[in-house]
Amino acid sequence: MHGLMQDWPLLIHKIIDHAAVQHAGRPVVSRSVEGPIVRTSYAALRGRALKVAKRLARDGIREGDRVGTLAWNTARHLETWYGITGIGAVYHTLNPRLFEDQIVYIASHAEDRLLFLDLTFVAMMERLQDRLPSIERYVVLTDAAHMPRTRLRNAVAYEDWIAEVDEDFAWAALEETAAAGLCYTSGTTGEPKGVLYSHRSNVLHAMMANQRDALGLSSRDVAMPVVPLFHANGWSFGFSAPMAGATLVLPGPKLDGGSLAELLIEEKVTVSAAVPTVWFTLLQHLEATGLELPDLERVVIGGSACPRAVTRTFRERYGVEVLHAWGMTEMSPLGTVCSLKPDYGDLDVEAWLDVKERAGHPFFGIEMRIEDDDGRALPWDGEAFGRLKVRGPAIAKAYFHREEPILDHDGFFDTGDVATIDRFGNMQVVDRSKDVIKSGGEWISSIDLENHAVGHPHVAEAAAIGVPHPKWGERPLLVVVPKAGVEPDKDAILAHLATRLAKWQLPDEVVFVEEIPHTATGKIQKVALRERFEGWTPPG
Amino acid sequence: MHGLMQDWPLLIHKIIDHAAVQHAGRPVVSRSVEGPIVRTSYAALRGRALKVAKRLARDGIREGDRVGTLAWNTARHLETWYGITGIGAVYHTLNPRLFEDQIVYIASHAEDRLLFLDLTFVAMMERLQDRLPSIERYVVLTDAAHMPRTRLRNAVAYEDWIAEVDEDFAWAALEETAAAGLCYTSGTTGEPKGVLYSHRSNVLHAMMANQRDALGLSSRDVAMPVVPLFHANGWSFGFSAPMAGATLVLPGPKLDGGSLAELLIEEKVTVSAAVPTVWFTLLQHLEATGLELPDLERVVIGGSACPRAVTRTFRERYGVEVLHAWGMTEMSPLGTVCSLKPDYGDLDVEAWLDVKERAGHPFFGIEMRIEDDDGRALPWDGEAFGRLKVRGPAIAKAYFHREEPILDHDGFFDTGDVATIDRFGNMQVVDRSKDVIKSGGEWISSIDLENHAVGHPHVAEAAAIGVPHPKWGERPLLVVVPKAGVEPDKDAILAHLATRLAKWQLPDEVVFVEEIPHTATGKIQKVALRERFEGWTPPG
Repeated sequence: MHGLMQDWPLLIHKIIDHAAVQHAGRPVVSRSVEGPIVRTSYAALRGRALKVAKRLARDGIREGDRVGTLAWNTARHLETWYGITGIGAVYHTLNPRLFEDQIVYIASHAEDRLLFLDLTFVAMMERLQDRLPSIERYVVLTDAAHMPRTRLRNAVAYEDWIAEVDEDFAWAALEETAAAGLCYTSGTTGEPKGVLYSHRSNVLHAMMANQRDALGLSSRDVAMPVVPLFHANGWSFGFSAPMAGATLVLPGPKLDGGSLAELLIEEKVTVSAAVPTVWFTLLQHLEATGLELPDLERVVIGGSACPRAVTRTFRERYGVEVLHAWGMTEMSPLGTVCSLKPDYGDLDVEAWLDVKERAGHPFFGIEMRIEDDDGRALPWDGEAFGRLKVRGPAIAKAYFHREEPILDHDGFFDTGDVATIDRFGNMQVVDRSKDVIKSGGEWISSIDLENHAVGHPHVAEAAAIGVPHPKWGERPLLVVVPKAGVEPDKDAILAHLATRLAKWQLPDEVVFVEEIPHTATGKIQKVALRERFEGWTPPG
Repeated sequence: MHGLMQDWPLLIHKIIDHAAVQHAGRPVVSRSVEGPIVRTSYAALRGRALKVAKRLARDGIREGDRVGTLAWNTARHLETWYGITGIGAVYHTLNPRLFEDQIVYIASHAEDRLLFLDLTFVAMMERLQDRLPSIERYVVLTDAAHMPRTRLRNAVAYEDWIAEVDEDFAWAALEETAAAGLCYTSGTTGEPKGVLYSHRSNVLHAMMANQRDALGLSSRDVAMPVVPLFHANGWSFGFSAPMAGATLVLPGPKLDGGSLAELLIEEKVTVSAAVPTVWFTLLQHLEATGLELPDLERVVIGGSACPRAVTRTFRERYGVEVLHAWGMTEMSPLGTVCSLKPDYGDLDVEAWLDVKERAGHPFFGIEMRIEDDDGRALPWDGEAFGRLKVRGPAIAKAYFHREEPILDHDGFFDTGDVATIDRFGNMQVVDRSKDVIKSGGEWISSIDLENHAVGHPHVAEAAAIGVPHPKWGERPLLVVVPKAGVEPDKDAILAHLATRLAKWQLPDEVVFVEEIPHTATGKIQKVALRERFEGWTPPG
């Protein structure tokens, strides 16, 4: 027997329809790529999204086609998402920070038919377009006055292009499981893999993210996602903010401390989100200028662990709560937010900072487990660590145009992270599972080793890798870039680590190198390191 | 092309699973029907719900079967919901405040196979059971020590009944559109009509309700729904609170000011919900005793309009924000909450109270329109009023075991209310559409007339009805119960109204009566009044 409730599919256009009706005049503020700060509203943004939809349809873009975007956070970029999904096509965000070969691989694999791009990226795409025959047209997100001379295929200025149509367009009627968005992961190994979001998953994820213990946006919030829309589905802000009717502030291409401080203060931003580096730079700017943040209430920090000093300064100096968040492109992307559960009771500052260093707890819609190598569930005691697996309606079950299954027999996705979970459900990532060092049945966190190593004054950067060992299976090797002008002392570094780690966790050897290899997005390339030290034999 | 996201149906058991895993120790506090305040947790409640499921299955209850509940708000009542839905059966809440004939009608129409009931209702059901042959077994929500001698069919004490099984049970795998809950409307006309919720609609509704501008529950909230679980799906608290991990305080059968004040204060309740009468009584108790409400932050008030004085006292005396809410059983039930949008800017107290008198704005998942009698959309100017229609994933499309369609050609449900919507989307109910008085193409709100009439010192209660008029179609007649010991003056009342209403809105006549007829739930029976005054002719 079925319930007798209305058939109301979870489609992305309902988000912008809701915002345009219920929060019609709410501002959407962008720092434009051309320079000036420009203002629009949800009602106007929806109107322009309808034009995008109508114009795309006229260009022959059809349901299921991929349409690329290579753009900063602006209202124009966001309205393309709603326009693209409004005809049943798929927005595909390209990350301009990747190596050009990766961009070519990703746009080719996705078979993007049209690309929206900011002025910033015209020169790059002119270099690449001959390698991207699937892209039939380049729409430059600007107006005629700012349109450059370009040899991009069928290039047109966005404002001219949408001016050819009106808003009289009906959103496509789709199944809620229809594809809506595509975002490739930039892993450290293998080719990038495409995550294909559906209308249902994006709408549910935005609802999940808007729960109080997650982003918890309200119509009284002024939300500034510094995290780019091209980074892991923009951490949901492009959907969650209009769903909640929050004012949206989009910082465009200028992500330096001064530019962000200006927007935070002038636009009275209450909640923002970015990777730790952004906040570190902002805090330096604030300290140098003596500026205050009277309206900012909370900042969401993800992408990598947030330094304790940043969390402390935000709290003690600016009265801002840091919300550590964890997720991945495959999770739409939010998995946990470290809002504080009441279980912890009243905490003094240091204990509060201890909890705030963790990745946080999942909200409704995310199931989580940690397992050992044999698939046995591990206890939630904050100590045991194992493979972190997740399940939920906004988590990938397969990659775009790839055959291999990625879920286990219970339908869980292996995140590739190794984590602990404490008794209150608060998760902490300990390592990547391919980087954890397995020594005699025990797991040693390479990240833990590295974090302690960089605490020594001789160490500029450190990478810990497992190297094969006849007795223990693997043993840790610590690769260190010494600080400039220092004569590094191996024994001093080992003695430093010995005060912080158990004996069996200590590296068997410390080797000094001039440079550690990194990916385009700044991650250490441990595969390359492991190859380099493949033949290395432990001493003794 | 479909997205590649996991298949994770929106099933009710996922809510209690989430609570039991992520908020395992969070308290669920009940004032038991036996008397004492008892405490459990979400983890324990889930374990007992699994026992309920297993035991129901052993009693032969199958997917789609209806299982009645006739009970106050306690953990036992709530765990029956999760147990019933966990095997794919349908919880059917019965309202003990209805006339006994209505209870018989509803339980018969639903074909309830088993009834969970509180000790309070054993005697009533002994009177009614011979008229309810479908009910095979009565499970009294108590333990052996408190179990009365009863001739109820196959009666058993709940604690004995679930003690026969363990928790080793797998929730049923269901489609998310499967029926989950049944609640009958107690309208003023016709037979009660059953609203059949699905798993999907209840889960989506709980997610909608947990948005910040609606209930916005968090794990740090202590939520006390005074509104009964049997009243319009319990305003979602039974789902929203465990979904958010909020502490739940359930007041059982004692809803007097003293009992509620005790729980509000001792259990540090932060958010509560009830009809205006409850709050009126509570405020009287607080005033008489001088008690404070240090933890309470917000109260949700629905069912009928909240007197301005109550909203004012909560704000000025206790620092509590009143959230006026509107909804209906057919809407799962929440439709709007009057949290304040930033559009209104900074308001002084009186202007704030003006806005707070409105019913509020819908959150994502509710679409709303107002129409005239010809189906034309009316402007959102706060003045024009018309039929209020709604659409969304948690709104009924039909009634249980009734043929007639209830949606218009656009899929909207006519709420039967007449309302205005202001330019910021804030809705105000003006009247019921069957009660509004249609005079010469203009609509006159009967509620408006009544509210102004009771402002006159001679008037104890007033009801305005439309009576046929040869020229105007209908004209208003005001039926008044005078205050005891007063010689009421018709002209004085009309003069009073003339200072507040336009001339064409004034009643053609005022008639005095000893009593106005009411329904079991306290609503004025206007149908009966209209019948009584059917032959009445306007003067002149």
